Amino acid sequence: MHEFAYKRDQLCCEGLPVKDLAKKFATPLYVYSAKTVLDHFLKIKKAFAPLKPLICYSVKANSNLSILKLLVDKGAGLDIVSGGELYRAQKVKCLAKKVVYASVGKTVKEIKDAIEYGILMFNVESAPELERINDIAAELNRRVDVALRVNLDISPKTHAYIKTAKKETKFGMEPDLAKDILINQRCYPNLNMKGVHIHIGSQITEARPCVDAIKKIKALIKEVKAQGVILEYLNIGGGLGIIYDKERPQTAAKFARKVLPLLKSISLKVILEPGRFIVGNAGILVTKVLYVKNTIQKKFIIIDAGMNDLIRPSLYQAHHTIVPLSLYRRKTKGTSKKADIVGPICESADFLGKERDLDAKVGDYLAVLGAGAYGFVMSSNYNSRPRVAEVLVKGKEVKLVRKRETYKDLVAKEIIV
Amino acid sequence: MHEFAYKRDQLCCEGLPVKDLAKKFATPLYVYSAKTVLDHFLKIKKAFAPLKPLICYSVKANSNLSILKLLVDKGAGLDIVSGGELYRAQKVKCLAKKVVYASVGKTVKEIKDAIEYGILMFNVESAPELERINDIAAELNRRVDVALRVNLDISPKTHAYIKTAKKETKFGMEPDLAKDILINQRCYPNLNMKGVHIHIGSQITEARPCVDAIKKIKALIKEVKAQGVILEYLNIGGGLGIIYDKERPQTAAKFARKVLPLLKSISLKVILEPGRFIVGNAGILVTKVLYVKNTIQKKFIIIDAGMNDLIRPSLYQAHHTIVPLSLYRRKTKGTSKKADIVGPICESADFLGKERDLDAKVGDYLAVLGAGAYGFVMSSNYNSRPRVAEVLVKGKEVKLVRKRETYKDLVAKEIIV
Repeated sequence: MHEFAYKRDQLCCEGLPVKDLAKKFATPLYVYSAKTVLDHFLKIKKAFAPLKPLICYSVKANSNLSILKLLVDKGAGLDIVSGGELYRAQKVKCLAKKVVYASVGKTVKEIKDAIEYGILMFNVESAPELERINDIAAELNRRVDVALRVNLDISPKTHAYIKTAKKETKFGMEPDLAKDILINQRCYPNLNMKGVHIHIGSQITEARPCVDAIKKIKALIKEVKAQGVILEYLNIGGGLGIIYDKERPQTAAKFARKVLPLLKSISLKVILEPGRFIVGNAGILVTKVLYVKNTIQKKFIIIDAGMNDLIRPSLYQAHHTIVPLSLYRRKTKGTSKKADIVGPICESADFLGKERDLDAKVGDYLAVLGAGAYGFVMSSNYNSRPRVAEVLVKGKEVKLVRKRETYKDLVAKEIIV
Repeated sequence: MHEFAYKRDQLCCEGLPVKDLAKKFATPLYVYSAKTVLDHFLKIKKAFAPLKPLICYSVKANSNLSILKLLVDKGAGLDIVSGGELYRAQKVKCLAKKVVYASVGKTVKEIKDAIEYGILMFNVESAPELERINDIAAELNRRVDVALRVNLDISPKTHAYIKTAKKETKFGMEPDLAKDILINQRCYPNLNMKGVHIHIGSQITEARPCVDAIKKIKALIKEVKAQGVILEYLNIGGGLGIIYDKERPQTAAKFARKVLPLLKSISLKVILEPGRFIVGNAGILVTKVLYVKNTIQKKFIIIDAGMNDLIRPSLYQAHHTIVPLSLYRRKTKGTSKKADIVGPICESADFLGKERDLDAKVGDYLAVLGAGAYGFVMSSNYNSRPRVAEVLVKGKEVKLVRKRETYKDLVAKEIIV
């Protein structure tokens, strides 16, 4: 469910015609619905209420400060993966004790900054990283809380690029190694081993792989408990899928029903890290048709947004539904060829949709749906295209939350020699 | 050939140890060799000297202003694809009459700006675009020079994402349409139809598809000439491949030998648009090893550069050779597992090399070779990672040509509401 719907043939965001935003802020434009963001957050909160989990929104999905603030103000914590995301957490004044930090490549400086901010814990991905955090903690004369990320060798049905718990991926530690470390944690005198972390991937639409993962980690927790290891947290990561096309993903409630009994039986504090589930359907990319080009073979709807604005179609072969902002009645139907919706960038990777039933004429506005997660955050200046503006709709209010870049911005860091 | 070579076991750029640059400017870092850039430009210039072509460097491959200036100062023109690239051309004071402009999605403002700058010509990709340029020219009371980009339905051996002349791609016009327009050019009273443009794709390692394309366009030119159409330019685009791995691409000289007789027989002024060929091997991405992680299955060399810095491996499955900056003798050999070289970003798409014979320890510096083209220009702030610095080596001089972004830069355009 989301707050983008037609009202008198006009696509609206929380009741406001998106076309008015396109005219006011120009295109391409990311438009987010605050209500959709919060609804999804509350859905998870409600579904897992019996456990009172800490819900750490996954900043990497959409890191716009105003989106973060919305969630933090409602009590969300943040799941960060870099020093830049730590900086963002600080900017929106997220309580340090609600920040968890995962990444296989934390630098010394990033670790120090996070310790100094006083984050809840690091999700540690390897033994060398554990040693490094221990050393830095010793140097700072601190004891630091960590969870071990365990790689359970589970393969959910999703794109290979966003599976994160197969043993051939770079993430987490093998279960035997994690057990060994937990049992011998005295070797890390400056660390408190507070928990275990599992995260099997992104855009997962069924509960089974998660249930399998939780069962596996339950067994591991039991084993180490028998050896006297006391844990406080189980972080089950994120990964809840959304509807992009014809997926029928589980709801938060349905997912919770499947995993709640299991989680209760483990009796640890639970941390969740939803990202895409919260923001994925809360954002659209608004674009204008520049040209319609008919060839004998094909129809091309050439738009002003490109792969630099939204790379998911070319990088992950991801499907995004594309709809007109205004529905106009057609006199004839079934006569038009299927269309490729392509951008202005000079390579064939630059498409947002292929073989679509979509009719459009020059000057029409289109909306690329489901663009709230991994949309703007992955955008680039490829082909020297300024990055676009982001707008947040919040009831009757419309706020520019990121200004459009200018040509001058493109070269601001460059020095001609 | 390029200017990155080992000297006393240290990888050097134009004789300077790259390690010194890594220490001075920190990592990740793009390092370019001015000599390599110019050598490649001169190779093309020399190979095609009998034709005295206009060589328009393809800005999209690497748009750093200092790289552009290097080339423009040696007489190169520029091949641009957007208003942002037009802005860059102006910044480096490229003669307007050496600028050609291709793109399937030129906006009204971009067309106006380019007309006002007085560029040599537009490479026009569709009939609707032709009409638009004609209308704008009329409005500005100008006559504007254009070439028609012809889609010859030719499929070179390269990645599907960078083939640009199959009839199912968005580029150019079908030959029959182009002929029709040329013959009836009086319908566009504000345009001078000065030429035809063909560009079949990028990273092409053999002459045959180009020869085929030129033969096809020669036939078209002959046909329209018979109808009284006078053309002045033939733009054969770019696409010359480079060595990333085990490719054995044609040299500029060898390519020229294959196409020169054909081009001479056409008797038009020739335009070339090399990009990757000039800068591809003139740049490397320097990175530091953050962790080495051994699992039962695999070895992971975790580096401080990620897919946000260089997306070619995950987007195009591109191979980049990765080498250490310092060669150190190993006591034992053949004992180490093959390694995946991966970045700190939280997804499995974040790799720069897979299954490599590479030994490295924490703190080692590595160089990702062949990163001069489609490297920095495609980089993003994904995972809130500041974009890296770019450095140009020019003989004994080392110049910072783009400053590293800071955390503050990440949020400079954002507004918290």
